[in-house]
Amino acid sequence: MEARKPYDIDRLTDVALRVFAERGYDGASMDDVARAAGITKAGIYHHVAAKEALLERGLRRALDALFAIAEEPEAREGAAIRRLEHIVHRVVEATFTLLPELTVLFRVRANSPVTREAVERRRAFDRLVAGLIRQAQSEGAIAATFDPALASRLIFGMSNSLVEWYHPGGQLGPAEIAAAVENLVFDGLRGPGAGAV
Amino acid sequence: MEARKPYDIDRLTDVALRVFAERGYDGASMDDVARAAGITKAGIYHHVAAKEALLERGLRRALDALFAIAEEPEAREGAAIRRLEHIVHRVVEATFTLLPELTVLFRVRANSPVTREAVERRRAFDRLVAGLIRQAQSEGAIAATFDPALASRLIFGMSNSLVEWYHPGGQLGPAEIAAAVENLVFDGLRGPGAGAV
Repeated sequence: MEARKPYDIDRLTDVALRVFAERGYDGASMDDVARAAGITKAGIYHHVAAKEALLERGLRRALDALFAIAEEPEAREGAAIRRLEHIVHRVVEATFTLLPELTVLFRVRANSPVTREAVERRRAFDRLVAGLIRQAQSEGAIAATFDPALASRLIFGMSNSLVEWYHPGGQLGPAEIAAAVENLVFDGLRGPGAGAV
Repeated sequence: MEARKPYDIDRLTDVALRVFAERGYDGASMDDVARAAGITKAGIYHHVAAKEALLERGLRRALDALFAIAEEPEAREGAAIRRLEHIVHRVVEATFTLLPELTVLFRVRANSPVTREAVERRRAFDRLVAGLIRQAQSEGAIAATFDPALASRLIFGMSNSLVEWYHPGGQLGPAEIAAAVENLVFDGLRGPGAGAV
């Protein structure tokens, strides 16, 4: 229990995001957040004006993490296919370290100014990846048959799905899962380890 | 507007599933369903006892469709890799024809007897596909590096993500999207069309 330590806004956001991820944002009340935090609802309103302010902070964490990945040197320099590999790898890693934040981001619907902005930033990240796929195609490293925007959505559709079924401490760890995502995205099921059929 | 025709339980389920898919099941009220159907709430309760009965019917439609695919001859006979290709193809097709039903299924959390049963049936479908992947590995058609259960989750994570961004009448149609999913799942981005890097 963390109840004894004084809450700051960051720790309160941690708790709120876990509650939102578990119950769904619409299904979670400030009472639920207060209960999970072990403090009174008045104690929460001392820190934030509304539930949506906690959502906004969580969405910002998730999106800042994604864009920070895109700024890493390995995502900015070298062959486009290598930059793409780096981004996919790091997004999967981020999914494990920011599980509640990304769970909430991936489920969010654009139905308010806060959520619309988050969805818009997420689309900008998708466009950035689509641009890399296009470049890798022009460099001959990715099959020309793929629509770049569609491929980007499908790749993140796959990696985002982690948040729906991954449980820390399960049979497969983050490293195995990250490797499987990368193998599937880049080489497919029939990849290098399979015979030609 | 469909308001003038008398409602039956199937058409009411159609409307309810669209509302659940749009607002989220927890966020949707029977008032929302009544408004979308153009009838009174009393008119709805004439057909069903509770919101969850509409959810249950929708989840059953989605799961029955998945298991019907697994019963098709092309899913039961021949090389495991071909059977798997058939299932992936048909699941993507079903996602387009049963978009609200599968949207609701893919988002459902096991927090009641009805949703627990749905999640359990969905897991059984995952296990069936994992078994096919295992068999295709033993037949040398799928890289031995993949954990079958994990690969199954990732594949459907990708195809399920359609429900989050597909809009009928968009730039890319069902056929292009289905082809991209299959290419990505089986051959990956580097697939046959790309040079070796």
